[in-house]
Amino acid sequence: MRKIRIGILGYGNLGKGVEVGILQNKDMELAGVFTRRDADKVELITDNAKAYHITKAKEMTDKIDVMILCGGSKSDIPTQGPEFAEIFNTVDAFDTHAKISDYYDAMDKVARRAKKTCVIASGFDPGLFSLNRLYAEAVLPVGKNYTFWGKGVSQGHSDAIRKVEGVIDARQYTIPIEEAMNKVRSGEMPDLTPRQKHLRECFVVADDGADLSRIENDIKSMPDYFSDYDTIVNFISQEELDKNHKGLAHGGFVIQSGKTGLNDENSNIIEYRLKLGSNPEFTANVLLAYARAVYRLNKEGSYGAKTVLDIAPAYLSIKSAEELRRTII
Amino acid sequence: MRKIRIGILGYGNLGKGVEVGILQNKDMELAGVFTRRDADKVELITDNAKAYHITKAKEMTDKIDVMILCGGSKSDIPTQGPEFAEIFNTVDAFDTHAKISDYYDAMDKVARRAKKTCVIASGFDPGLFSLNRLYAEAVLPVGKNYTFWGKGVSQGHSDAIRKVEGVIDARQYTIPIEEAMNKVRSGEMPDLTPRQKHLRECFVVADDGADLSRIENDIKSMPDYFSDYDTIVNFISQEELDKNHKGLAHGGFVIQSGKTGLNDENSNIIEYRLKLGSNPEFTANVLLAYARAVYRLNKEGSYGAKTVLDIAPAYLSIKSAEELRRTII
Repeated sequence: MRKIRIGILGYGNLGKGVEVGILQNKDMELAGVFTRRDADKVELITDNAKAYHITKAKEMTDKIDVMILCGGSKSDIPTQGPEFAEIFNTVDAFDTHAKISDYYDAMDKVARRAKKTCVIASGFDPGLFSLNRLYAEAVLPVGKNYTFWGKGVSQGHSDAIRKVEGVIDARQYTIPIEEAMNKVRSGEMPDLTPRQKHLRECFVVADDGADLSRIENDIKSMPDYFSDYDTIVNFISQEELDKNHKGLAHGGFVIQSGKTGLNDENSNIIEYRLKLGSNPEFTANVLLAYARAVYRLNKEGSYGAKTVLDIAPAYLSIKSAEELRRTII
Repeated sequence: MRKIRIGILGYGNLGKGVEVGILQNKDMELAGVFTRRDADKVELITDNAKAYHITKAKEMTDKIDVMILCGGSKSDIPTQGPEFAEIFNTVDAFDTHAKISDYYDAMDKVARRAKKTCVIASGFDPGLFSLNRLYAEAVLPVGKNYTFWGKGVSQGHSDAIRKVEGVIDARQYTIPIEEAMNKVRSGEMPDLTPRQKHLRECFVVADDGADLSRIENDIKSMPDYFSDYDTIVNFISQEELDKNHKGLAHGGFVIQSGKTGLNDENSNIIEYRLKLGSNPEFTANVLLAYARAVYRLNKEGSYGAKTVLDIAPAYLSIKSAEELRRTII
């Protein structure tokens, strides 16, 4: 059987994760990496594949079954998505929660017209966490759902700190608060404030002679990002930041606490946990599983934009339906 | 909008769980309970519903959208399933893992011919655990999957003890071994024997004057059920058994340990845990979510037998696709 030919658009951490992830999936092969940089200067991790300038993609529509969009959600995906859905089946990890409905509509319109299949907002959250929120809520409708993130770096919060005057570099860890999780696990269904759910720990490299207490105060009082949380600010050297805080680990928890029984007398807890050594590599693997689904759905004539909620789980597996019934059910 | 009319076949713990579960789902109503017993003597938990003799079901095909089969997997479902799939959309919790393929084939044949939609082998395991095994394996293909059950009563093991000479009554708890789970969570990917994964604890009521050490030995040496495990046997009175060991709590864990990276250098753990105050009520709620899916799929003309792996998650939710994109993704 012919392998599913995967294209990678954007060659950052996520794109590299997709490149190595393909090696774990026997039914897939890398058809090419597409970049806005000078393609000749891009060195791939694996052999037998090539980097091309992004403008070459439209000449390779017959060589690629699914294009994985690995750019940023802020400025790349919103324009690249609809552009590429015109000529490719796509999978992306678009993660701006507030804009997912609009992005879905834009992608769906283009993909249906072009008879392409496009999975949007896949990955870990949105993605596997969304799936778990849905399943949990559907089976425990009298209940409450809690999502905790971390421990892991938040890119958005790290960027926000870097904009503070006198800051050279920074990394911010989002840390779930164990006490709050244990309260949820006990079946209590507490109302939790942002401060009760997550702690924010920052590692900051400051300019020589900068006013550290002013920087600390600027960070802690920053609305939306920090003012609603307990925040710890540590000042360290650039060397220390580079050495100890460049890891890509992440994770989190989706916990549903629900009651059953005529008088809601029985407590039931569903807990889903991810503990990821590499967030981009794991996210890449999720995108690849959905690339398999996209490939199959498109062959079946199921066109348009889809989220992870719209796709039957069996489409993600390399195993046949019969084998799944024998080994997984 | 008209509610989904649910029929319940079999009125044991699971059937009763479905009855109270319907009250948690605003888009559902109970159309009737069907039993092999004298229907006049069956007292329902809720008002506004009636019990009928099982033979009346075939006269009520226009009053029921989905029939939930709540009988036992050993002798009820294998015959009731195909019989009812001829005239109703059905959902069941058939859980004899080794016979699922055959049962699927039998159900699929009847349901396709009759233009019915039938979800088989739903519930907690098979069911939600199957889903988690599939998703985990699809996104971490270089990895290993572990399922741990408990702490909870195993009906099959309890029944096996009751067949030992001199035993009046018994309950057997399957208990996952924390040390093994922690080894898996560490990313080690150990090969675990049955003995390393689960402990079996038995509470046994013996005949007056029975030889307790012979009973203990008969239990511990029983092939398939106990000989491959460390087993604890406690002798107690019937009163104590009835008082302390009639609970319906259960649960378990599906843990995937997987590697990512060019040289498998990063460790990633996916852990799914259920902690259920009431196994039958929770299982009933899962069946009801799949009843919603069955109802919709049948309206769309998607006929035949299906497992949880064949159904897109969105079908389980009372929310619209647009609402899901806004609130769950």
